[in-house]
Amino acid sequence: MPTFEDLKVFTGNANPRLAEDICAYLGISLGACEVFKFSNDNTFVRILENIRERDVFLVQPIAAPVNDHIMELLIMIDAARRASAGRITAVVPYYAYGRSDKKDQPRVPITARLVANLISVAGADRLLTVDLHAGQIQGFFNIPVDELTTVPMLANYYADKGLTNLVVTAPDVGAAERADDTSKILDMPFAIVEKHRIGNEDRVESANVIGDVEGKTALIVDDEIGSGGTVIATAQALKKNGAGDIYCCVTHPVLSGRAVEVIENSEIKELVVTDTLPIPPEKMGSKIKVLSVAATLGEAIHRIHSGMSVGAMFE
Amino acid sequence: MPTFEDLKVFTGNANPRLAEDICAYLGISLGACEVFKFSNDNTFVRILENIRERDVFLVQPIAAPVNDHIMELLIMIDAARRASAGRITAVVPYYAYGRSDKKDQPRVPITARLVANLISVAGADRLLTVDLHAGQIQGFFNIPVDELTTVPMLANYYADKGLTNLVVTAPDVGAAERADDTSKILDMPFAIVEKHRIGNEDRVESANVIGDVEGKTALIVDDEIGSGGTVIATAQALKKNGAGDIYCCVTHPVLSGRAVEVIENSEIKELVVTDTLPIPPEKMGSKIKVLSVAATLGEAIHRIHSGMSVGAMFE
Amino acid sequence: MPTFEDLKVFTGNANPRLAEDICAYLGISLGACEVFKFSNDNTFVRILENIRERDVFLVQPIAAPVNDHIMELLIMIDAARRASAGRITAVVPYYAYGRSDKKDQPRVPITARLVANLISVAGADRLLTVDLHAGQIQGFFNIPVDELTTVPMLANYYADKGLTNLVVTAPDVGAAERADDTSKILDMPFAIVEKHRIGNEDRVESANVIGDVEGKTALIVDDEIGSGGTVIATAQALKKNGAGDIYCCVTHPVLSGRAVEVIENSEIKELVVTDTLPIPPEKMGSKIKVLSVAATLGEAIHRIHSGMSVGAMFE
Amino acid sequence: MPTFEDLKVFTGNANPRLAEDICAYLGISLGACEVFKFSNDNTFVRILENIRERDVFLVQPIAAPVNDHIMELLIMIDAARRASAGRITAVVPYYAYGRSDKKDQPRVPITARLVANLISVAGADRLLTVDLHAGQIQGFFNIPVDELTTVPMLANYYADKGLTNLVVTAPDVGAAERADDTSKILDMPFAIVEKHRIGNEDRVESANVIGDVEGKTALIVDDEIGSGGTVIATAQALKKNGAGDIYCCVTHPVLSGRAVEVIENSEIKELVVTDTLPIPPEKMGSKIKVLSVAATLGEAIHRIHSGMSVGAMFE
Amino acid sequence: MPTFEDLKVFTGNANPRLAEDICAYLGISLGACEVFKFSNDNTFVRILENIRERDVFLVQPIAAPVNDHIMELLIMIDAARRASAGRITAVVPYYAYGRSDKKDQPRVPITARLVANLISVAGADRLLTVDLHAGQIQGFFNIPVDELTTVPMLANYYADKGLTNLVVTAPDVGAAERADDTSKILDMPFAIVEKHRIGNEDRVESANVIGDVEGKTALIVDDEIGSGGTVIATAQALKKNGAGDIYCCVTHPVLSGRAVEVIENSEIKELVVTDTLPIPPEKMGSKIKVLSVAATLGEAIHRIHSGMSVGAMFE
Amino acid sequence: MPTFEDLKVFTGNANPRLAEDICAYLGISLGACEVFKFSNDNTFVRILENIRERDVFLVQPIAAPVNDHIMELLIMIDAARRASAGRITAVVPYYAYGRSDKKDQPRVPITARLVANLISVAGADRLLTVDLHAGQIQGFFNIPVDELTTVPMLANYYADKGLTNLVVTAPDVGAAERADDTSKILDMPFAIVEKHRIGNEDRVESANVIGDVEGKTALIVDDEIGSGGTVIATAQALKKNGAGDIYCCVTHPVLSGRAVEVIENSEIKELVVTDTLPIPPEKMGSKIKVLSVAATLGEAIHRIHSGMSVGAMFE
Repeated sequence: MPTFEDLKVFTGNANPRLAEDICAYLGISLGACEVFKFSNDNTFVRILENIRERDVFLVQPIAAPVNDHIMELLIMIDAARRASAGRITAVVPYYAYGRSDKKDQPRVPITARLVANLISVAGADRLLTVDLHAGQIQGFFNIPVDELTTVPMLANYYADKGLTNLVVTAPDVGAAERADDTSKILDMPFAIVEKHRIGNEDRVESANVIGDVEGKTALIVDDEIGSGGTVIATAQALKKNGAGDIYCCVTHPVLSGRAVEVIENSEIKELVVTDTLPIPPEKMGSKIKVLSVAATLGEAIHRIHSGMSVGAMFE
Repeated sequence: MPTFEDLKVFTGNANPRLAEDICAYLGISLGACEVFKFSNDNTFVRILENIRERDVFLVQPIAAPVNDHIMELLIMIDAARRASAGRITAVVPYYAYGRSDKKDQPRVPITARLVANLISVAGADRLLTVDLHAGQIQGFFNIPVDELTTVPMLANYYADKGLTNLVVTAPDVGAAERADDTSKILDMPFAIVEKHRIGNEDRVESANVIGDVEGKTALIVDDEIGSGGTVIATAQALKKNGAGDIYCCVTHPVLSGRAVEVIENSEIKELVVTDTLPIPPEKMGSKIKVLSVAATLGEAIHRIHSGMSVGAMFE
Repeated sequence: MPTFEDLKVFTGNANPRLAEDICAYLGISLGACEVFKFSNDNTFVRILENIRERDVFLVQPIAAPVNDHIMELLIMIDAARRASAGRITAVVPYYAYGRSDKKDQPRVPITARLVANLISVAGADRLLTVDLHAGQIQGFFNIPVDELTTVPMLANYYADKGLTNLVVTAPDVGAAERADDTSKILDMPFAIVEKHRIGNEDRVESANVIGDVEGKTALIVDDEIGSGGTVIATAQALKKNGAGDIYCCVTHPVLSGRAVEVIENSEIKELVVTDTLPIPPEKMGSKIKVLSVAATLGEAIHRIHSGMSVGAMFE
Repeated sequence: MPTFEDLKVFTGNANPRLAEDICAYLGISLGACEVFKFSNDNTFVRILENIRERDVFLVQPIAAPVNDHIMELLIMIDAARRASAGRITAVVPYYAYGRSDKKDQPRVPITARLVANLISVAGADRLLTVDLHAGQIQGFFNIPVDELTTVPMLANYYADKGLTNLVVTAPDVGAAERADDTSKILDMPFAIVEKHRIGNEDRVESANVIGDVEGKTALIVDDEIGSGGTVIATAQALKKNGAGDIYCCVTHPVLSGRAVEVIENSEIKELVVTDTLPIPPEKMGSKIKVLSVAATLGEAIHRIHSGMSVGAMFE
Repeated sequence: MPTFEDLKVFTGNANPRLAEDICAYLGISLGACEVFKFSNDNTFVRILENIRERDVFLVQPIAAPVNDHIMELLIMIDAARRASAGRITAVVPYYAYGRSDKKDQPRVPITARLVANLISVAGADRLLTVDLHAGQIQGFFNIPVDELTTVPMLANYYADKGLTNLVVTAPDVGAAERADDTSKILDMPFAIVEKHRIGNEDRVESANVIGDVEGKTALIVDDEIGSGGTVIATAQALKKNGAGDIYCCVTHPVLSGRAVEVIENSEIKELVVTDTLPIPPEKMGSKIKVLSVAATLGEAIHRIHSGMSVGAMFE
Repeated sequence: MPTFEDLKVFTGNANPRLAEDICAYLGISLGACEVFKFSNDNTFVRILENIRERDVFLVQPIAAPVNDHIMELLIMIDAARRASAGRITAVVPYYAYGRSDKKDQPRVPITARLVANLISVAGADRLLTVDLHAGQIQGFFNIPVDELTTVPMLANYYADKGLTNLVVTAPDVGAAERADDTSKILDMPFAIVEKHRIGNEDRVESANVIGDVEGKTALIVDDEIGSGGTVIATAQALKKNGAGDIYCCVTHPVLSGRAVEVIENSEIKELVVTDTLPIPPEKMGSKIKVLSVAATLGEAIHRIHSGMSVGAMFE
């Protein structure tokens, strides 16, 4: 086994707080590194400590502004590779462009594959990520991928809460497998709210509830929350079909547009998310509760660095 | 636009009948080619006509014996490339290993990606396929992929049949999107039969029906039928929940093990499949009806060869 | 020679006006294509016309916001490749990150090479560009590169103006070769203003004039103008050394920060630029004169498409 | 030198007995791993122990069924790579498709090169093999190849036997170099039986003995024995030319078709082979003697793992 | 089929005479191109006519000085690729380093594979060559290879000569297959002169004749003649074993060191070679007869350019 | 960090003396290795000691004969890779073809990029070099490059000499940045001698001095000296403009053609060079002084091997 003498963790600008929390878990300092834009809008990176043959982890979820954070990640990888890093792991807790994972219309890209190619050609040796929009995105990479799941952490949050008479609800067909997994951990039934959408955006036309929700507490689960439109339409459909309290949990708080305002004014009692993406203070609505993935990521980095099983974390 | 002077279609041993039907649609003869095994079990290929700069299509669904037919395909590609084919399109109407599309357990392969790499490294310039197990498998390729769908053809079969009071049923959560698509074409509701499975094989422990099926005619839809275990368990769950007649349609008739016998003895009234995979006479059960994809594939080949839109076939 | 039946030109959002002018030169319509961001900040591309086997040119200078325009270009390439374009030429009139072309400090990236890798891995077959910051960036690509030069066009502008007693001035050592080339076309002497810079930004500490400028009209030439700091410091040094009128010409009007204001208030009489980058109306200062590269790019595209020499345009 | 902490040996289904014997030599246990087919004929692999950063050796000669065993090997490599193995060595004691090593007819493949590409693209870092059909197959790989030879082991077997008045005989021109090497170790003359073959199969039309065999004991040497046709025709030609006792030794006992029966009924006194390929009990004819390569392979694995010279084993 | 509008043939300095003869066969002019060394010993190439989208053939056997001619070839390929050639075929009538085709000692290179990689990475799309030292070298390439053979041309020369009572003789075991092929065309027996060599050079220690040569006219055949040592030792062994007149034919007249003088003074009556390599006037010994491959190569180029079968030339 | 157990340094024939001096600095013996030409002009390499998993450095500046030394390097890399070296660093103190780094005329190669591709495809893991003709050549590589500079060493030589009233002079525009760097270390002004050249060779037509040299001691600095034409023309122009004593320093003593004679007879008082290239005794003119890079290279190798910062050597 290659004996990596030093473990080095660096961060771009996407979520430095998470990187610091990971380092705290690992008991090391965050590596010194400049990542900024010149006045001509060109991103620049300079790593400020020797990383020759070191085991380098670059923490950078693809938060908005999405394209800037992708380019930051790629440029950091290039700098690390040319600086003779021993191994480079891109730690991407949120993988944007996950919904662009197949050609479901003529002449559209598969951007999730493109991003995989970009990360690989820049020189990453591995990817560490959390809750991909589709598990198949692992297969967009030829380099080893460790995908961590927050499903047990989130499910256990509700198990601890002692909610009974629950129905786990997928807000659309694409989320059915995740809802199914959650319902199995909680040993509760699940339902799907099937929708018609208009065009390529997040606008919902009609919604039917498949499964029995009458008189039950509903837990909506999804991988991410964007503008909130899907979740709200789901909550309304659940209410119309007689559901009681409505909870919602997602891994990735994208929270684009007026999402926070919309949720505040909705029937949702609580929105549980993780810190894969940063939530700026002005978006930290009263209904939002954040669980941290820092320990999970930190433990995974420790195990990757030490040659221990990552899968064993979830057994 | 490259002006491919001659269109050449060759077939391996997986489904020569389909290749002939495609050629009949195109009004050309199937290309001459030897594909056989030496006594030492090594597969051998010899293309018997000049294909320099020709536009070559190799028809080979990955029917059982699966590994033999993959190797036949790869060796045919190698022979065509070294024989200076102008362009090589792998026509793979059934893409096996589609269920091995992500790491859902520690230390398993992503064989669907591996097969994509094998086809690419052998030298194929494009892939033409039908109803992948997951659309994301398109993204396992860097070469252009044309994925044709039989969903409209199969849905229209039932529309023509004039069945009313139908519920389109997904036999498991993974098939929900396909059932949803079919239900939207037929303008009928859909349901899911959610299951617990044991281990890595097709054995079902328990099944719950999500959605309303009581008193309705059920149409089970899936991408393929293997041993039939899933479909049978689905039919039983539907019956237990009060469904009436049960129909079933899938694109790919894998029909492994005792599938045909099991279906003959089941509640299923009719099983509609396509000819992406050959059904040997002894498996041609009385309940099976085969719709042909030859015209669809032939038209797609014509359009690929001529630089015309393939997407327009489905608009 | 491949006979490309149709020439197709598409544009991203970086400089649609230039793309339209190129199409006007070519006498064709700009191809229909959507390039926009979803509310979750993910860029989306959809090409709205069949491009199978067509000869596709994607016009996209890397204008600010730089990273968005790079990602737009890459996603457009991915979409075009997966849509079976016959050949894809990335037309990048301004190649950002050109100054990040070598490791001149420890642990910095070579972003200009990284971007070349990104464009290649996305699937471009060729690059057409204008006045790279360093000619060696051509060699960052393995695909063929056509680099067009505006040096003759800009030099001829001054020849036509009939300025005499001119000294062509490089604003720093890195621009010496370009100034030398310009001075040879105009048959005038040249000078260099050598500078000390501080840190990684565009701040100048001191400037010495090398060469004789006293009593001469000075023409400052460079490949691009960013914040204007370099040009202003050059003009001041020229004035201090007795130069007369001061003109300035650059190919790429990056015009970042307060550049326009700074130039308006400076000793510079006129700033001649090209339209490789768009200048928004609010930046269209009174001293700025724009020469168009549309005809040059249009002619180059015509020649690339038709298999005619591009080099012959400059002989 | 990378210090591989743990050496891990796994086997597919091609020759588990050999893998166990190699592990016995090394004093380690065979790694736990499932390799089987689902009912739909798809091969599945699951590695049952952590192999992160371990030095992994996958033992899999390409025995019949050839294509199944190739795919098993490739899928094992894919699983090991995605499970973050430190280094993967494909241990392929018998490399099938070795006779498909050049285009000696129009439009045939070079399958031995194709298989090399498949092994490489799947992710193997090295190849360890025994007695390739042609040494040039080493050059089909860009990854390092260690080819072990059994020529000295087999030659020494006859040296120990004390046979005198021997003529080492190549059964065809292609085997001449191997026979020459063997004759040099034994310090005995050699002969060639030159043949005319019909078509692509192992049927011999006529055979001439080149060299002096009259009254001598003949030792036929070749790299493998398939259907036995070549060897039998060689023995007959030798007898017709006055040879005495006839022995035969080959490395790889392919023994296809009726090979064992044919040899039993032939003039061959003894057939010496190795255990690179398994011989099922029903093929274990009375004239066959098996020498084991387990110690040779085990020692090579030990040396590869420890950074010691493999070439020194044969000096 | 791509319609290559213009066929362009260029030559390096290795054998311009052959390139001219090929062009004469094709009825076209040799393309204009400079290939020379600067005073600093750097090779320089400039192609003097537009080759965009043209079908370019670069004629360059790897004659001595071997490394200069390889680099010339690679640089010509690079220039042609960057000049947007439509397709580049490396025409290498003599492929040097063919004997370095496997690792037969520890820690030696496989230079024949390395050269294949160099030609490929430089950007050649195809290889056209003549009589490789080993056919397997075809498999060192992933790009299509057309290997032409001179065996029929050379054999027919002797058939026309009306020599009877001939024995075709391989000068060593490695040449056995070629001698066998020649003997089959001439319908004459063949023999091998087996040798012990010392070290890595062409010095022969002892030689035994295998097969019957007494009283026969011997025709020594090999792929190339270097210093002549092997051929001379073969002739001596043949004479010692009672052979009559001795002829020799090889494809490639490497003629290194004192080869010509040695042959002039030997028992060899005539040495027939081809013009794959140039013979300078001072090496044009009285016993040497040259047959030209220009028509064979010209016809192959014509067929490759036109999409016609090359294999059909030899049927 | 990979713990390379043994550091191994080998040399080709380009500059064995430098390799020995490097080993002396490192306190190790030069590795045993044969690098020679067979009589057929094919270069051969054999490494004579086990290098499995060792950290291998191959010292080979691309001295004349340039193409032979490139091929030696590539073949050594191939041999080392196939012999299972742990890591291979190409140590190329002089990188020839550096002036062929862009297409400044139609249809010329970018040979410096080609050579980078050759070194990479042969299998080098890293490059260690000294004073590239253009820093951008680093970006021609995807593998990590360490470029060492001799500018401080050479500048300090003159600082120690105590020369005052100096003007650092670039002999052409391309050398301006290097002269600027040197002038900043010495805190002296700089000048440029701008030239018109004829054709592709080193012949100078006219030369103008830009900057003030009258009455000053001039120090001409460049990266290399070839035929000496540029330097001599520079010295003459300096003299004509009133300069006093003229010194010259360059890193790489190419010294082609009559360079030494020309310098001996020139106004140059002393030519300081380094030993990146060997100077044969007959070229060791009385005015030449050689400073050694052996310690600099040795220290860099030590640091690369040990995972220490190389950049820190120059801070």
